[in-house]
Amino acid sequence: MLRVGLLGAGRIGLVHAKAISAHPQSKLVAIADVVKESATKLAGQYGAEARSNEAVIGDAAIDAVLIATSTNTHSDLIEAATRAGKAVLCEKPVDLSLARAQACRAAAAATGRPVMIGFNRRFDPNFAALKAAVDRGEIGKSELLSITSFDPAPPPVAYVQGSGGLFRDMMIHDFDMACWMMGSAPQTVTAIGTSIVDPEIGNAGDVDTAVVTLRFADGRIAVIKNSRRAAYGYDQRIELLGAEGLLSAGNVLENTVSKATKAGVVSAKPEYFFLERYMRSYAAEWAAFVEAVNTGSAVPVSLDDGVNALAIAEAAALSAKTAATVAMASVIN
Amino acid sequence: MLRVGLLGAGRIGLVHAKAISAHPQSKLVAIADVVKESATKLAGQYGAEARSNEAVIGDAAIDAVLIATSTNTHSDLIEAATRAGKAVLCEKPVDLSLARAQACRAAAAATGRPVMIGFNRRFDPNFAALKAAVDRGEIGKSELLSITSFDPAPPPVAYVQGSGGLFRDMMIHDFDMACWMMGSAPQTVTAIGTSIVDPEIGNAGDVDTAVVTLRFADGRIAVIKNSRRAAYGYDQRIELLGAEGLLSAGNVLENTVSKATKAGVVSAKPEYFFLERYMRSYAAEWAAFVEAVNTGSAVPVSLDDGVNALAIAEAAALSAKTAATVAMASVIN
Amino acid sequence: MLRVGLLGAGRIGLVHAKAISAHPQSKLVAIADVVKESATKLAGQYGAEARSNEAVIGDAAIDAVLIATSTNTHSDLIEAATRAGKAVLCEKPVDLSLARAQACRAAAAATGRPVMIGFNRRFDPNFAALKAAVDRGEIGKSELLSITSFDPAPPPVAYVQGSGGLFRDMMIHDFDMACWMMGSAPQTVTAIGTSIVDPEIGNAGDVDTAVVTLRFADGRIAVIKNSRRAAYGYDQRIELLGAEGLLSAGNVLENTVSKATKAGVVSAKPEYFFLERYMRSYAAEWAAFVEAVNTGSAVPVSLDDGVNALAIAEAAALSAKTAATVAMASVIN
Amino acid sequence: MLRVGLLGAGRIGLVHAKAISAHPQSKLVAIADVVKESATKLAGQYGAEARSNEAVIGDAAIDAVLIATSTNTHSDLIEAATRAGKAVLCEKPVDLSLARAQACRAAAAATGRPVMIGFNRRFDPNFAALKAAVDRGEIGKSELLSITSFDPAPPPVAYVQGSGGLFRDMMIHDFDMACWMMGSAPQTVTAIGTSIVDPEIGNAGDVDTAVVTLRFADGRIAVIKNSRRAAYGYDQRIELLGAEGLLSAGNVLENTVSKATKAGVVSAKPEYFFLERYMRSYAAEWAAFVEAVNTGSAVPVSLDDGVNALAIAEAAALSAKTAATVAMASVIN
Repeated sequence: MLRVGLLGAGRIGLVHAKAISAHPQSKLVAIADVVKESATKLAGQYGAEARSNEAVIGDAAIDAVLIATSTNTHSDLIEAATRAGKAVLCEKPVDLSLARAQACRAAAAATGRPVMIGFNRRFDPNFAALKAAVDRGEIGKSELLSITSFDPAPPPVAYVQGSGGLFRDMMIHDFDMACWMMGSAPQTVTAIGTSIVDPEIGNAGDVDTAVVTLRFADGRIAVIKNSRRAAYGYDQRIELLGAEGLLSAGNVLENTVSKATKAGVVSAKPEYFFLERYMRSYAAEWAAFVEAVNTGSAVPVSLDDGVNALAIAEAAALSAKTAATVAMASVIN
Repeated sequence: MLRVGLLGAGRIGLVHAKAISAHPQSKLVAIADVVKESATKLAGQYGAEARSNEAVIGDAAIDAVLIATSTNTHSDLIEAATRAGKAVLCEKPVDLSLARAQACRAAAAATGRPVMIGFNRRFDPNFAALKAAVDRGEIGKSELLSITSFDPAPPPVAYVQGSGGLFRDMMIHDFDMACWMMGSAPQTVTAIGTSIVDPEIGNAGDVDTAVVTLRFADGRIAVIKNSRRAAYGYDQRIELLGAEGLLSAGNVLENTVSKATKAGVVSAKPEYFFLERYMRSYAAEWAAFVEAVNTGSAVPVSLDDGVNALAIAEAAALSAKTAATVAMASVIN
Repeated sequence: MLRVGLLGAGRIGLVHAKAISAHPQSKLVAIADVVKESATKLAGQYGAEARSNEAVIGDAAIDAVLIATSTNTHSDLIEAATRAGKAVLCEKPVDLSLARAQACRAAAAATGRPVMIGFNRRFDPNFAALKAAVDRGEIGKSELLSITSFDPAPPPVAYVQGSGGLFRDMMIHDFDMACWMMGSAPQTVTAIGTSIVDPEIGNAGDVDTAVVTLRFADGRIAVIKNSRRAAYGYDQRIELLGAEGLLSAGNVLENTVSKATKAGVVSAKPEYFFLERYMRSYAAEWAAFVEAVNTGSAVPVSLDDGVNALAIAEAAALSAKTAATVAMASVIN
Repeated sequence: MLRVGLLGAGRIGLVHAKAISAHPQSKLVAIADVVKESATKLAGQYGAEARSNEAVIGDAAIDAVLIATSTNTHSDLIEAATRAGKAVLCEKPVDLSLARAQACRAAAAATGRPVMIGFNRRFDPNFAALKAAVDRGEIGKSELLSITSFDPAPPPVAYVQGSGGLFRDMMIHDFDMACWMMGSAPQTVTAIGTSIVDPEIGNAGDVDTAVVTLRFADGRIAVIKNSRRAAYGYDQRIELLGAEGLLSAGNVLENTVSKATKAGVVSAKPEYFFLERYMRSYAAEWAAFVEAVNTGSAVPVSLDDGVNALAIAEAAALSAKTAATVAMASVIN
């Protein structure tokens, strides 16, 4: 039984608390949050104890720590927890600063403890099925990947201001997805961004709509489209063109009902947002982490993967600003 | 070049005139109609001559006659045309009286001339593709066939009164389709009918909604659903369950556009009615007729097929009236 | 907190044990099974106690009993449990004998205790969404209902022999669904059955493929198709034609991935069987039962509904045997 | 009756000959081709006369000229035909040289004769329906357009060498489509190209896979994906995200049949190539030209539109070469 401490009892913390508790091989023993009442309330629901971050990390009886705190604390907590010998699952992004994330990676590596980054979408059953088909060679050599990733509604501007921007906050999921699907990291990044959904987002210095093209060393291309608003719900689709065909993963719809009338044929919308669409992926993510820790095998999404996605985000932000393609080599060094 | 006379310049006559003219190996030379103006007008459009039925059938320079007149004239015209040595393509049904249709079949057979019945749906590219897949054994032994066949809107009651009723007028297409798909004629017929779309249809002694089940000698089953009204357009679908899978032919939609909004995802309706949905099937039907006549091979839909479908319609009408399954043997003898 | 005893620890008992335990307002306290080891094992998993049926029913501290035993014990256990003051949720069918089920209904009614029958499909989110749309009048007056219900593979003949036959064992779900969707019970039943999937099923006196047509007093029609085999998985679909349109509930697919190659476009199959497809419906069913018991409101699926579906099954079996439509009035009296 | 001369009797000339002849208000009177036998053969089929380009253009009895010759002759023929007073429909692209196309535009404008460019995809019923929905405001303000345009198989390298490259030869259709859908011309162009389908194409100095992003003055974005190979057929799709929803136009499939087996559910592929997919669009394009000429209204796709699309292609080629965004202003001046 893996004894787990949860750092962060916000919206995503609730999701993880449920997954940890539901897993037959893990037990949620302690929860910390800057808002003590949140930790206390959640701890009460799951028979855990509310504590400080330090008390969680310092407890020798705790095997693993799940970090779901605000982004600016991720690197410090990863370092502290691995130093204390914990296995770690940390939400994305590793950090908003690439340099800090790289330093964190080095520090964590020195401890030898496993650190997994929460790119949960890899565990979505649909995307995982697509990836498995690619790996089985069902469409031959992959050539052109397209990711559509639209949120249902823009976040408050206050959130945007502290988010690190669309590339680091939102598209980072898609950067990881692209690297995973293509089986490697890109060589160059070309980004176009605009603020047409909400002018306040533009005023805050961010974009709300963006298209990024990644070019891989062997000439393959991935294109990612992000928008902060899709009136019809969470639009999460992937298409991969290969030498022998096209694989597509469509949206998960609210139900299978359709209605045909004079006005046309109406079917259900996509699930509204990530809590609905990706609930199963969070459970599968946690199961994969427990499995890796229990068997001593490599975590399926490494801290390296987290740093890599962040580096692409940094390159994308630079490309959007300079209106020129950015070589990854210039960002990583 | 097959020289063709067209009998009947009504709605379906127009469709055939176009198909005859467009075919590179046939030429429309004469048109007859009880309404002379209709024949004259249509003849003008296609460079043909307006004549009487007799003048068409009596013309030695005409090779083939297409009969698209009112149903009560079909048998007489088939007999007259074959007697005059013409190849014949006649619209469905052969007749409203099974006995008369059987007599017509005998008379036509005696002439040795080819008579094809216009069950055009066999030539719909979708249904034809489904049939080809069945014949290739793609779902193994067929077991349970389902035909959905709904008109967009009920016809005027005046039409219903002269139509022979839903089973002989409308479902006769589906009876032929079922026999063709299953590769044989049914042994028993069980029918349920009701008038819930338009009470005037019920008052006229007919039904507007019906379900008929056909049982074949080897135990296979076909079920046909008809309604005189589908607010969303012409609903024409087939499903065939076999030992190894299910084949389905869906509707042809007006276009491929869909719109996702807060209200759901709206896509296009089925094509509105048979003129839209089955236009290609009429051209393919005519091509098959020309091919059979030119090569001397058997027509793909025989007068036997027409009589057979009519017999099933008669059995269905009887079953609906008696609330009991009817053996085809009792109807045919 | 509703304290619950579970009778029956077989395949469906496991499903219910999970649902009872996962619900925040119910607690699984005791489990009985004719195979003691099964009860003991399941009780161990959920922190419950293994007991005899009598010890569960006789325990004053137990509020509700879920009956998931073999069909021939249902009526006795419903009577015993309600007599002991328990609220009851019983799996379908109530009994294989209509007379026995009617007697059970009378006995249970005399106790005033709530008895709900496990027609779980009413709680499938897709069918429930379709029903809600009907009730909102989205397609006007309903006219023609079609239910497709195919199992992935036929059961062992030994199961078939004790099952009461396809109409009582399998199609009974669809009879309940039809009555629920149409908002009333049928007036007549017309059935056709055949054994073409597995001759052993025919030898055992049962059918494996059947089509049943229900006619309601106001002329509306429902048609139900059952097959014991669909090579592609569990096929569970509903279509309802109304005056203003058509509502359809399609299958739930294994994932949303499709692959386009030279061979065509391949998408995922339906979920394999009821454990996959209807898992959410069992949880929703249990929640509805807890809600009804807690609030004292009527259970959403009554013992009457269970008896009604069984009566239709009896009529269907009779119709299939006599090749004639059967009036429900002749079966119920 | 519009009397028409056709210049060019190659593959696309055949398509136009058919459309011209089928239209009730136009007559194909003369055909020219550098390969005289081609002109003679096609003229024979349609009762037209085979002549030289000069003899067609010089014939005062000819009202309109359709130019379907090789690209390097387009500008000269547009100038000659308009100078001779003809209305002109010319295949895309106007020219491979932007300067030459601009000069041609000026010369043609001076004659006052109508010149329409053959961006036939605007007349595809699906794309036209999508555009109409946008114009009706069905998704509010448009924000992000995506065009997927994949050919089924790469052309011979010899063709590629004379084609002007993927951007001028293939993606030019999509540039026009993007401008039409967005209702304006882009401000900047960012292109990424690669040769991964066929190394011979790369050796010839061209790309076979490319992604181009257009940015409009008001911040809206269009992204276009091209590949020279889609093993499953011609992939022609459009998606437009707006403030209130998403409009999508999917592929036209070969038929509506699907097959469900253990291996999944297989449906039909997209129509194989432009002759199948866009046949209706060519007829509609011709009808629109005839209508404009007959009524004296503006042609729906102007020579300006042709020059504009070519300018974007030039910018895209430059952007792909320089790895930087290109401002349209720098290309047009």
